[in-house]
Amino acid sequence: MKFTVIERAGNNINILDQRQLPVAVVYNQYDDYRDVLEAVRTLEIRGAPAIGIAGAYAIAMAANVKVNLSVEQFKRILVNVADEVKAARPTAVNLAWGVDRVMKIAQLYDGNNLDEFRVLLWKEADVILNEDRELCEAIGRNGASLLDDGDSVLTHCNAGALATAGMGTALAIVYVARDMGKKVRIFADETRPLLQGARLTCWELMQEGIDVTLICDNMAGFVMKQGKVNKVIVGADRVARNGDFANKIGTYSLAVLAREHGIPFYVAFPYSSRDDNIATGADIPVEERSSDEVTNWGGVQTAPYGVKVYSPAFDITPATLVTAYITDKGIMAGGLRT
Amino acid sequence: MKFTVIERAGNNINILDQRQLPVAVVYNQYDDYRDVLEAVRTLEIRGAPAIGIAGAYAIAMAANVKVNLSVEQFKRILVNVADEVKAARPTAVNLAWGVDRVMKIAQLYDGNNLDEFRVLLWKEADVILNEDRELCEAIGRNGASLLDDGDSVLTHCNAGALATAGMGTALAIVYVARDMGKKVRIFADETRPLLQGARLTCWELMQEGIDVTLICDNMAGFVMKQGKVNKVIVGADRVARNGDFANKIGTYSLAVLAREHGIPFYVAFPYSSRDDNIATGADIPVEERSSDEVTNWGGVQTAPYGVKVYSPAFDITPATLVTAYITDKGIMAGGLRT
Repeated sequence: MKFTVIERAGNNINILDQRQLPVAVVYNQYDDYRDVLEAVRTLEIRGAPAIGIAGAYAIAMAANVKVNLSVEQFKRILVNVADEVKAARPTAVNLAWGVDRVMKIAQLYDGNNLDEFRVLLWKEADVILNEDRELCEAIGRNGASLLDDGDSVLTHCNAGALATAGMGTALAIVYVARDMGKKVRIFADETRPLLQGARLTCWELMQEGIDVTLICDNMAGFVMKQGKVNKVIVGADRVARNGDFANKIGTYSLAVLAREHGIPFYVAFPYSSRDDNIATGADIPVEERSSDEVTNWGGVQTAPYGVKVYSPAFDITPATLVTAYITDKGIMAGGLRT
Repeated sequence: MKFTVIERAGNNINILDQRQLPVAVVYNQYDDYRDVLEAVRTLEIRGAPAIGIAGAYAIAMAANVKVNLSVEQFKRILVNVADEVKAARPTAVNLAWGVDRVMKIAQLYDGNNLDEFRVLLWKEADVILNEDRELCEAIGRNGASLLDDGDSVLTHCNAGALATAGMGTALAIVYVARDMGKKVRIFADETRPLLQGARLTCWELMQEGIDVTLICDNMAGFVMKQGKVNKVIVGADRVARNGDFANKIGTYSLAVLAREHGIPFYVAFPYSSRDDNIATGADIPVEERSSDEVTNWGGVQTAPYGVKVYSPAFDITPATLVTAYITDKGIMAGGLRT
């Protein structure tokens, strides 16, 4: 990839500031874990896998501080830091997961060499980052077989490299297909209200030299009707036992429209996004977001003051609309019967 | 209605400045036809019927000028004015139609009293405005029978009072149903890229005290799935002989989604929008709009510089997805077979 969302630089971390995309490309280098927390809080870095990695490195960075304490004393400080890091985005499951993995290494260490202890924490965060990269590559490799030379793929939101430490999920498939010599073009939904498609997906595909065309979300059906796309690939936030899945609002409409036009509908995600505690999509609670996101853009008011807004953050797509699931562990058939 | 898009004030015209909605409600009074042209050009006034009326009044206003000419000499000047008015928005068929109607009255006048001549032109423009008001009311009356107390109606773009001199087309149905004592709530698609739903439909419904909820276009499918709406009513720009119709981009997706959820899909328009020269939707050319409308909002950049954009202004919905057409001449069955 021609950019990296998060990477280690010695005992510092470089983060690509996604708040400034697509207008400016700025990398910030941090040596204090509290700055990384602020980056997580303000969406300088976003995407579940990327946030998990940021959380892991935040713990390692907290251990950078030169102090005259025993390892045991220092571990007790880290427990508080871990809570602080997790609180940066309390609903982001991956953040807590990344923190807990590094904290487990911390708890397991039974030596009394603070330098050795620090190295172990950094190493575990590196492992998490590398696992994510490999996972993205595996999704990409598995999915690339489904793409043909000349395909035109519609995607929604950003399930790309900007959401992970690697090549992304849905877009990893496009990158690997490209590397295999297949010419694939992309139509990107702008993805209201926060425009992750316009701001992020278009930016990263252009960085990678992939042919991308931006459309408004309401154009997707007509684009399908006109035969301009022949496949749809989206990501998934959470997948129920029966294959129903939650993803950015608008995904469900795309799935219905894809079936109407006989276009295969693929969902790409890390196998770990399957939540076996959830039987069907009906059990996934739908979070509503602030009306401001819909009624304002960049400080410009676009709707009357006080208008009622309904803004679900994501929607639930039933397994019966899915052609196939593409994961790091392989491809699984969806419930679509044609 | 609690507002009027365009109305006569003596020999002047008052126009509601829709560019400033929903932030400010400003009426501009014009006494020079060239100011009305500028208002048409800059979308201060929009909507096919409203533009036609503006064109008609522009001709009458041009005749306001006190000149020392014979009627015949003055008619020759008006021919040039008519061309100038039509050129303000050359693709707006209604503009030319409104101009031509008043010009026909001008040509038919065979007296030589300039004051009498002026009065006739103003009178014809008044007739056009009143016809539009009555036409909106007829659409509203015809359609209101299809709405039940407690209905929740999804609409797209602005097919309301802000597009006409009267109550609108799709929204006229809602206003008349309300006047009949039926409680109807509305979900309004924001309607990217120009946000006519957010800016205009929400504003006018709030003015009228109608319960309206704004959603992003990509939420419509999920809103249907959740049972939050039970009817869809949209307008139409142009209707082919077989019932296929062109309307604001996004309409086609709504029609597919409505059928998927068993929700009736109604199209409201003046009977005169039927274009019998066009056999099917395939014969309607699809105009593309500027990429700037998608990549910028209020001067704020929302996509990478130079990104390719596909932005059809409208889409074509086949008659087979329409439950019924609602016109001033009555209700006609669509081609949807359930």
